[in-house]
Parts: sequence; C-alpha cells; structure tokens
Amino acid sequence: MARTTTDAGRADGTPLPGPAAPVAPARRGVSRRDLLTGGLVAGWGAAIALGVDSARRPAPTAATPAPEPLNGTVVVPFHGPQQAALTVTPQTHSIHTALDLRPGTDRAALARLMRLLTDDAARLTQGRPALADTEPEMASTPARLTVTFGFGPGFVAAAGADVPAWLAPLPAFSIDRLEERWSGGDLLLEVACDDPTVLAHAHRMLRKDARAFTTVRWVQQGFRTAHGTSAPGTTMRNLFGQVDGTVNPAPGSAEQARAVLRSDGWLEGGTTLVVRRIAMNLDTWDEVDRPGRGASVGRRMSDGAPLTGGVEHDDVDLDALDGTGLPVVNIAAHVRRARATTPDEVFYRRAYNYESETDGAGLIFTTYQADPVRQLVPVQQRLAEADLLNTWTTPIGSAVFAIPPGCAPGGYVGETLLEG
Amino acid sequence: MARTTTDAGRADGTPLPGPAAPVAPARRGVSRRDLLTGGLVAGWGAAIALGVDSARRPAPTAATPAPEPLNGTVVVPFHGPQQAALTVTPQTHSIHTALDLRPGTDRAALARLMRLLTDDAARLTQGRPALADTEPEMASTPARLTVTFGFGPGFVAAAGADVPAWLAPLPAFSIDRLEERWSGGDLLLEVACDDPTVLAHAHRMLRKDARAFTTVRWVQQGFRTAHGTSAPGTTMRNLFGQVDGTVNPAPGSAEQARAVLRSDGWLEGGTTLVVRRIAMNLDTWDEVDRPGRGASVGRRMSDGAPLTGGVEHDDVDLDALDGTGLPVVNIAAHVRRARATTPDEVFYRRAYNYESETDGAGLIFTTYQADPVRQLVPVQQRLAEADLLNTWTTPIGSAVFAIPPGCAPGGYVGETLLEG
Repeated sequence: MARTTTDAGRADGTPLPGPAAPVAPARRGVSRRDLLTGGLVAGWGAAIALGVDSARRPAPTAATPAPEPLNGTVVVPFHGPQQAALTVTPQTHSIHTALDLRPGTDRAALARLMRLLTDDAARLTQGRPALADTEPEMASTPARLTVTFGFGPGFVAAAGADVPAWLAPLPAFSIDRLEERWSGGDLLLEVACDDPTVLAHAHRMLRKDARAFTTVRWVQQGFRTAHGTSAPGTTMRNLFGQVDGTVNPAPGSAEQARAVLRSDGWLEGGTTLVVRRIAMNLDTWDEVDRPGRGASVGRRMSDGAPLTGGVEHDDVDLDALDGTGLPVVNIAAHVRRARATTPDEVFYRRAYNYESETDGAGLIFTTYQADPVRQLVPVQQRLAEADLLNTWTTPIGSAVFAIPPGCAPGGYVGETLLEG
Repeated sequence: MARTTTDAGRADGTPLPGPAAPVAPARRGVSRRDLLTGGLVAGWGAAIALGVDSARRPAPTAATPAPEPLNGTVVVPFHGPQQAALTVTPQTHSIHTALDLRPGTDRAALARLMRLLTDDAARLTQGRPALADTEPEMASTPARLTVTFGFGPGFVAAAGADVPAWLAPLPAFSIDRLEERWSGGDLLLEVACDDPTVLAHAHRMLRKDARAFTTVRWVQQGFRTAHGTSAPGTTMRNLFGQVDGTVNPAPGSAEQARAVLRSDGWLEGGTTLVVRRIAMNLDTWDEVDRPGRGASVGRRMSDGAPLTGGVEHDDVDLDALDGTGLPVVNIAAHVRRARATTPDEVFYRRAYNYESETDGAGLIFTTYQADPVRQLVPVQQRLAEADLLNTWTTPIGSAVFAIPPGCAPGGYVGETLLEG
C-alpha cells in the first residue's frame, strides 16, 4: 500500500488506493501533458515543502535517512482509448512474452481469458493486487507499470474472425536468420515497469492467469537507461553505444497517433506491433574504430548528432558533400537507409536492449504502426538491401501482432473482437 | 561526461571528472556516513536551490521538463581498505561472472590481468571510460557502479600460493542439486549498478580485458528493488514475496567488519564470498496459502514482522507458545533454522533475485564472511537438515571465492597475493 511518507514523490495525480494515500482533489483530473511533465513539478513542490527544513539541518544519521522523491508510486492510467505502452516514455524494464493458445481454446474461452487478464492489468498497474494475488505487497509500488496485449494470427482465427493479410510473418529479408524460438505467437503480453521486482511479479501473475488457456512460446527481457540516471528526454543508447531512437514520434503525440492508429472494424483505435529480435555482434563491432562506427550509423557516436553537423535532433543533410565531392553520409549509412522517404514510413519505435546470461546480446526492436506492410516493410527492405550496420547485426526473431484499442472501466481489451 | 544541469542530483560529494562538474570543496572529504546518508541532504539542498523558482512557475512544457534529482552521477569510491561491494547498500542490478584461467596463465600474467582489470574498475566506477573503451559515453553515468574481484582456488594455485582449506567447494548438503554450469570458477567479477545499461557496458569492458587470460564459466544476472521505488532502508522482497534479509549487518558497519574481515597474510583486510544459486519453485509455492507461507518463514508475509509480534526488525521470540502450548514459530520455520546461534554465525548477505528467460527463477544468495567453514556451513547444515522452505527451494549452484582487500591509488586488487 502507498505510504504517506512517500507521497511527495508521486509524479502524477492519479490516486493510489488505500486510506494512506491522500490526493489533492484539484489534481484528480489530469491531462496527458500533466501526466508527462506537470507531475514532476508537483513532486518538486511537495518535495520542497517537506525538504527545506531537513536540508538546513545537519546530515541525518543512518537510522533516519533524508527523504527523496520516489518513483514507485507513480501510476500510468490503465483505462483509455489506447493501450498504455503507446502513451508513456518507455520504462526501464520490459518483458515481451508470446503465448500460444492451447488446442480447443474457442471464442468464449478467449473472452474469459481477456476479461481475466484485463482485470489483472487494471489492478496491478494501479498499485492494487490482482484478484488471486498471492504476493499482494509486490503490487503496491507499480513504478509506471503498464500491460499491453497483442493478438497474433492464431488468436484472431480462434476468435472466429477473418485474419487480416498484414497479420502474418513479415516477408523474408535477405539478412534474416530467424529462429522459431524467438518468432511468432498467438497472444502477446508486454509488461513494462521502472522496477524489475515489481515487473517480475506482474508478469508472473498474468502468466499464471493465462496458464489454463496458453503455453509460453518465448520470453524476451529488455532494458533501457534506468529511471533517474539521465535527464528526462535523453535518448537511450543501445549496446553498440549508439544513440538509438532520435527520430521518433513522442508518446501520446498527434504525430504518433497519425502513424500508428487504425480506423477499421475491431481494430479501430488500435494499432499493430512488430517485435524483431536483433542480435548484435559486440565482438566484431569492437574491431571498428570510432570514425568507422560513426560512418556506419551516419551520426556521431559521442552525441548522436548528424555527421553533417548540428545537434542530435537536427535534420541529417543527406546531400552534403565533403571536400572531395563524396557524400558526408555514406550511401549505405544506417541513418540514410532507415529514414522515412514518405510520410507513410513513419512509425513509433519502443526498443529495448537485451543481454542474456547464455545467449548473446542485442536489441528488441519493436515498432508500432497502423499497417506494417505499408509502413515498416519498405524500410526493412531498404535496410536489408544495404545498411552498413548489417555487418554486425542479425535479425533472429520476428513476430507481428494486432494491438486492440484500450478499454473503459468495466470493459476488457479485446472486447471489440470478441463481443462484436 | 557529467552535465552541469544534472549536478543537482549528485548525492555524494565525490567529484566526477571533467570541467562540467563543479564540486563544493567543503564536501570533498567525505566519511562513509556522509556517503550513505548525508549525500541525500546535499542533493536536496542543491535541488532546492535550483528548484524553488521553477516549482513556483506554471508546469513546464514537454520541451522543457522539470529537473529531478539524478542518480546517474552518484559515485562510490573505488579505492579503499575494502572492496566496494561491502560498503554500499546493494544496487538495483548485479552481474556475477565466474571466469576460468586459460592454461598456462602464470603468476606474472595474473599480475598483469589484475592491474588491467583494477584500472578499468577504478575508471568506470568513477564515471570515466576504461583505457581502451570503445563506448566511452556509456561510462559517464556510473549510477553507483561497483566492481568487486574474487579469487577461486584455481587462481590462488596459479599464483603459486597455498590454497587455504576453506577455499574449496562447500561440503555437500543433502538438499543440493548442484549443476556444474552454475558452480566453481577461478576469478569472480561482481559488477553492480543502479542502471542496467551502464552495468552491461562495464561488465563487457571487464570481460573484454580479461579475455586474453580467461574464458567465461558462468554469468548470473540479478535484480532487487529499483533505486527510487521504495524509501531507503526498505528490506527487499524475493520472488516468493518474502521480506528477505532483515537480520543483516549494515554495509560498512563495525558489526559487518567483525563478521567478514580476515587478518591473515595476503587476505588481511579481505574476506570470503560464497555464491549460491537457489532455484525457487514458484508454481508449487503458489499452492501454499498465506498462513502456510508465514509459518514456513516464521515471519508475516505482509511486512516481515516475526510471527511472535512487533515490527520487522524486532527479535523473534522462539520460545513463545500459542494457546495450545505449541511453539508460535514452527520448529522447522526458516527464521528459526537460519538464525545465528553463536556470534560466529553472523555473516553479511547481499542477495539478488533472478529470473531467466528460459531457465527458471530464484535467488542468487551471496554471503560474505571471514571463514565460510566456521560461519556459514553450520547454518547451511541446519537448513539442509530441516527448513520448511526447502520444500520449494533447491540449491543448483555454489562457488567459494577469496575476496582480497581493496587497494590504494596506484595499487591493484590482488597485489597482496601477487606481489608478496
């Protein structure tokens, strides 16, 4: 349960349950902008109100450490028109889990399953235990927990609906070395959180409640820069040391909505998700010097700025020539090949680094887009044809999911498919 | 490199390198108590100095998020009489890596190896890139990074020294199901950090520089509650939901020093480390109700308080009887069996949860003690003979290491063995 002594750190106005969590009524109605930014100031205001006195006193003893703003009680709303992964700055940790339906799981069973999982997610993300939660205390600090559900072709077929043409494996690219153990799946759970222990608990609760209907196909654990390490808004680095994800619509922005939202049938207000596991060969990457790395990416390794100058978020000048008349940005540099050539090719990325104890390192490259065939495949095709980074990267997993819209209180994710 | 705009969040006075990191001279000399507690107040003071104005202004826009105290620039001193893992509240993430020496690695080679690794650790933990660092930017936010080295029997033998009798596998316990892939090793690297990306980089740098002399035997990745989730001083929970580690000497305390430090030969000022990988069967644990769980542990699941009453850190009354004349704390409850029966049985624990993508979940149970045979083995023997938790836990890995003392600037970890 929330502690009164920690409420100074709550960075949005969403009430946590329980008598110990006072919420100023004036902050109950919050906009997305409040959620993303204003809450920080609210936290600071409260922090300062509590903190000035102790800051002027001598250092406290070990028995009475000074307060600090806490991230654990920060809550991301669950209910809403979109599922929550789209609406927040990516959390520190993520687990993508693909489940396969047990034989005979029919439309009615799918509705029961999604009601159950939605109820779990609606509780856990708000700092409340799941209904059958055997470790309820591990739900009390959600730390921006979100749960996002996706449906693979097997799920849609089992629901008795037509499987859209795009809800299928991406076309084979020449660079792919896909492994079954990281590919496909009927039902995706993406659980993300700023705390790995809270994440483990939520992930397990959902898997337990899905167990009667599903088996686990694959699990992919990923991480980014931790909450509080860098200033908000700092672009993550991948394990190549590369600033990764500079050009990306902001979560919850109109640009993101244009890129990802669908308007058809049961997916109206939903989107699609492609999960690609990209192995990165850190050993051979080590052999490349800094200029070679920068040239491969098309950006400076130090700060992600385009090789053509400026700062990270400046446009890359693909036409710039160096003193010898050659392009400053190599014709096969990643930034040139990956860049959207039409507005259609804009999608939303939410990537995570991975490093396995026994099985290599790389990137869990995830993209949300209204239509993977129209938006993502042309870019992937260009990268497969020529991208200097291909020397050190290999796609080893791939899966495509429909991401249904969010739901209102009392509803459940998937109702537009399963009740329609 | 440290950013001036983020310095408000630095929670200790240890200077970061580079012209962008102003440090108040009065705080350069810091005690351990300052490091552990006072820094929070320093951070708050600075935060307030910078933050009051913006807190009184309207909420900033998304383009100019409010500042928040950062953990990334917090530095744990590397040089000192003990290696750093003993001196700090455990970080969010840890990687224990056991390396085996390549054939023919002799005393002179070991000295070169340990000089190199010590230099890497001394730089990386202070926010500076390693000498041959190919991703120097990934070193700029150390987030309490520590690196701790341990020597297995093979290392000490290769150094030409006598291998102490205790530096050997623990005696076999009846509950053990040890697997080679999680056991033994010549050289241990324990790298711990509040940021998983920074940790991955530091871990890789060290492994690269050890590669000429060693091969990887095993890697164990662990996690605890994230920095900022809970109030400082909150005891972690393991994946059973159990408050884990209540009775434990404080890092850097006199009690800890008494329990762990040795005074003999090259290990004077050093200690020993036992790493046990304990698989936890979450599926069968799920079948146990809350009272059954509490009875197995001897503490309330809700808050870790003894079943005999009070709050978490109160003593357990092992003699208390219930209304029927039976012990309140079961005779095979974990808390009864694990409890130190003599001052000799006090050791320092620094456990991490683990959850593998493919290979189960559990606890990386690590203990530091002056003498594992005298201090740890009697407790492990009692637990093997009777501990209700054994129903759901299985030791699957075990390794013992000598932890040499720390070193001064210009020295290296292991010099007392390799230069003596």
